[in-house]
Amino acid sequence: MPPPDSPHPVVVHIHTHMYPPSYIKLLSSRTTVPYIHQPTETPDADPRLIILASDDDPSRPKSSRGRPVDSTYSSFDQKRAFMRRHGISCSVVSLANPWLDFLDPATALQTAQEINNDLDAACAENNSVASASHDGLKLYAFGCLPLSAPAKDIVSEIHRLKSLRHVKGVIMGTTGLGNGLDDPALDDVYSALASTATLVFLHPHYGLPDSAFGGPDVVAKSGHVLPLALGFPLETTIAVSRMYLSGVFDRHPQLQFLLAHSGGTLPFLAGRIESCVAHEREFIANGGHRQGPQRSIWDVLHTNIYLDAVIYGQPGLKAAIEAAGSVDRVMFGTDHPFFPPLGDDKEAKWLSVESNKGAIDDCLPEDEAAKKKILGGNAIRVLGLDL
Amino acid sequence: MPPPDSPHPVVVHIHTHMYPPSYIKLLSSRTTVPYIHQPTETPDADPRLIILASDDDPSRPKSSRGRPVDSTYSSFDQKRAFMRRHGISCSVVSLANPWLDFLDPATALQTAQEINNDLDAACAENNSVASASHDGLKLYAFGCLPLSAPAKDIVSEIHRLKSLRHVKGVIMGTTGLGNGLDDPALDDVYSALASTATLVFLHPHYGLPDSAFGGPDVVAKSGHVLPLALGFPLETTIAVSRMYLSGVFDRHPQLQFLLAHSGGTLPFLAGRIESCVAHEREFIANGGHRQGPQRSIWDVLHTNIYLDAVIYGQPGLKAAIEAAGSVDRVMFGTDHPFFPPLGDDKEAKWLSVESNKGAIDDCLPEDEAAKKKILGGNAIRVLGLDL
Repeated sequence: MPPPDSPHPVVVHIHTHMYPPSYIKLLSSRTTVPYIHQPTETPDADPRLIILASDDDPSRPKSSRGRPVDSTYSSFDQKRAFMRRHGISCSVVSLANPWLDFLDPATALQTAQEINNDLDAACAENNSVASASHDGLKLYAFGCLPLSAPAKDIVSEIHRLKSLRHVKGVIMGTTGLGNGLDDPALDDVYSALASTATLVFLHPHYGLPDSAFGGPDVVAKSGHVLPLALGFPLETTIAVSRMYLSGVFDRHPQLQFLLAHSGGTLPFLAGRIESCVAHEREFIANGGHRQGPQRSIWDVLHTNIYLDAVIYGQPGLKAAIEAAGSVDRVMFGTDHPFFPPLGDDKEAKWLSVESNKGAIDDCLPEDEAAKKKILGGNAIRVLGLDL
Repeated sequence: MPPPDSPHPVVVHIHTHMYPPSYIKLLSSRTTVPYIHQPTETPDADPRLIILASDDDPSRPKSSRGRPVDSTYSSFDQKRAFMRRHGISCSVVSLANPWLDFLDPATALQTAQEINNDLDAACAENNSVASASHDGLKLYAFGCLPLSAPAKDIVSEIHRLKSLRHVKGVIMGTTGLGNGLDDPALDDVYSALASTATLVFLHPHYGLPDSAFGGPDVVAKSGHVLPLALGFPLETTIAVSRMYLSGVFDRHPQLQFLLAHSGGTLPFLAGRIESCVAHEREFIANGGHRQGPQRSIWDVLHTNIYLDAVIYGQPGLKAAIEAAGSVDRVMFGTDHPFFPPLGDDKEAKWLSVESNKGAIDDCLPEDEAAKKKILGGNAIRVLGLDL
C-alpha cells in the first residue's frame, strides 16, 4: 500500500470476479446450465464452465463446451498475484454471472448466506494478515442476493449483509425476479437497498438474442465477439433504460447503482433517450401531468449512477466521465479473470487491464487528482473502504 | 447564404429526409408494409404511413396505425421553411427508411432511377432559382439503390448516379441484399462504391427484435422510446461491426461510410470491440496469420467512416469526435422531419435540432473553426457541395 504522500495512487478495482469455493461446489453439483463439468476423458484438463444455454451445444462433446475454468477463477492467491503484477492494492471482488439467478427458491436464501459468509470470511482473513503476508493487498466483496427467493428473504439478506464488515454492496444481473428491473414487484427490494444505502453493482449476463445479430450462424463466425462486445453492453443499457422509463428512479430517488462496462452504452445514448422521451406521444402531458419518467436521464446519471471504467479506450471513457457529470462517479475495474492474454507469456501484463488504465491516462493527461479518484479514491469514498 | 467573411458559419444538414412525390405515389399504391393509407372514414385527416410490421397491428383500425404523414415529408417548400427557421443554408436530403428494400427485383432498377432523377431534378430546380427565390438555400441529395435487383443493376445505378450533378452519395439500410452488410455477395457493389468514390450514408430501419427488450408488452409501455432510442443505434452498430469482423474494410479499404446517429454506439464501444477481437480464441494466430479483421477498428474509424452529429448531447458528441479521430469527420444533421415538437406552437424551433446544435457548442466552446467544420465545412469538403 503506498503511503499517503506517495506519488503512486492507490489502485482499487471494483470490477473483478471470483468464484469462491462454495460457488464452485454449487456449480459442480449441477448438470444443467449453469454448471461445471470435469471431463472424464481428460481428467488432467481444467474443468469446463458452461454458463450460457448457447454454450451447451449438444452436438459438441461436453469436454469442449463452455470455457476452461482454472484456478484463477477461485484462488485468492492468484487474485493477489494478478494484483501485484498490475499495481493494484485492493480488489472489491464479486461473484461472476449468472450469480444465483438459477436457484430453487427453497434453497436460495441459505445458499446466498453461505456464499456471502464465505466471501466475507475470505476477505477478513486476507485483510487480517494483509500487512504481514500479502504486501498489504486488501480484499472486499460485493455480496449476492437470493433473487429467486420470496421478496421477504431478499430483503432480509440485504439487511443482514450490513453486518458483514467486508461486504460493500451487492452484485445483480438484469432479470431481477425474472421479469426485469422495471418489475413493480421489486419495489420492496429497491426500498431495502435504498434504506440500507446498499450500492448495486449491475452486470450483464444474458446479452441479446442471436436474432438481434442476424442469427446463430452470423454470431458463430466471430466467436464471442458480438455477444460480448455488443450484447453485454446493450443488455445493461436496456435494463437501466427500462428502470428509468418505468419510474423506478422517481419512486426510489436514493437508489445507488454502479453500472458495469461504463454503463453499457448509456453515456453515449443518454441524449438520444432524453430526446425520444421528450418527443414520445405516449408521454404527452395529460391534464398537466407528463406521463413517463419525471426526472431527466442526466439527473439520474448524476445522482443515482456510478460507472466503472471498463471501456478499453479514451472515447468511451471520456463520454462516461461527461455523462456521469464528474470524475467523482467513475471507478477503475479490470473484469479479471476474464479476458486473459492469449499468448504463452503467463507473466505478461494483461492487455485488458493496460488498455483500461491507458484510457484513464489518455483522458486526463494533466490531472493527477482526477486520475487518482478514478483509480481508487472514488471507490474508497463511495464504498467506505479501509485503506 | 452568409458571405465568406461572415461570422455565421454555413450550416449544412446531411441527415434530413424527404419522401419525393414519386416515392409517396409508390407507397400509396401498396397495401402491405411499407405503405401509405388514406383513411376513408376521415378523408380530411393526413394519410397514415405504416413502415414497420409492428405498426401494422391488425387489432387497430387502419386509420390509427403508423404515423400521420403530412406535407413536411414531401414538400420542398416546407423543407426550406424549416431550414430558414433554424439557420440552415443547405440540405443534403435522403429518402427515408425503408428506401427501396421491399421492391420486386423486376421493377427495382427502374423505380430507383425514377426516384433518383426526381431528387436530382428537384435539387437542380431549387438551386437554379436559389439565389433569387429561396434566400439562397441550396439542396442536394443522397440517391437510393435498387438493392433487391440483380447486382449488375445495382452497380450500373451506382455508376449512373455520378452523372446526376446534385446526387452526392447514396443512402442505404443495414440489410444489404437481404443478408446483412457482411454478405460476400455485396463485394461487387462495394467495389463499385469504392471505385466511384460514392459515400454511403448508412441508416437503421429494422431496429432490434422485441424480445431483445423483454417482449412487445415491455416495448409498448413507452411507445417508440426503446426501439428508436436503443434499437436504431444498435442496429447500426451491429451492421458495421459485422462488416468489420468479416473483413469488408480489409477487402475494400477505399469504402467511405457516413453513419447515422453518430455511429449508433460504435464510438463508445469501439474499444470494447477491439479488446474482444484481441482476446477471441477463434481469431488466434494460425500459422502466423491472425484470423478475423486485419485492421484495428480505430484505423477503420479514422479512414473509412464519417459520423453525423445527431446524438443530442455533449457526452455522445465528444465520444464521436474522439472516435472519429478528428473534428474533420463529423457532420451536423437534424433527422427532419422526424421528431417534430409535440406542442401547439408550429413556429417554435425544434428541440431535436437545438439539442444537436447545442451539443456542438458545448463540446467546442472556444473553437469556432472546429464548430464551422462540423456545422457545414466538412460536408462541403467531403461531398463537394457548391456553396
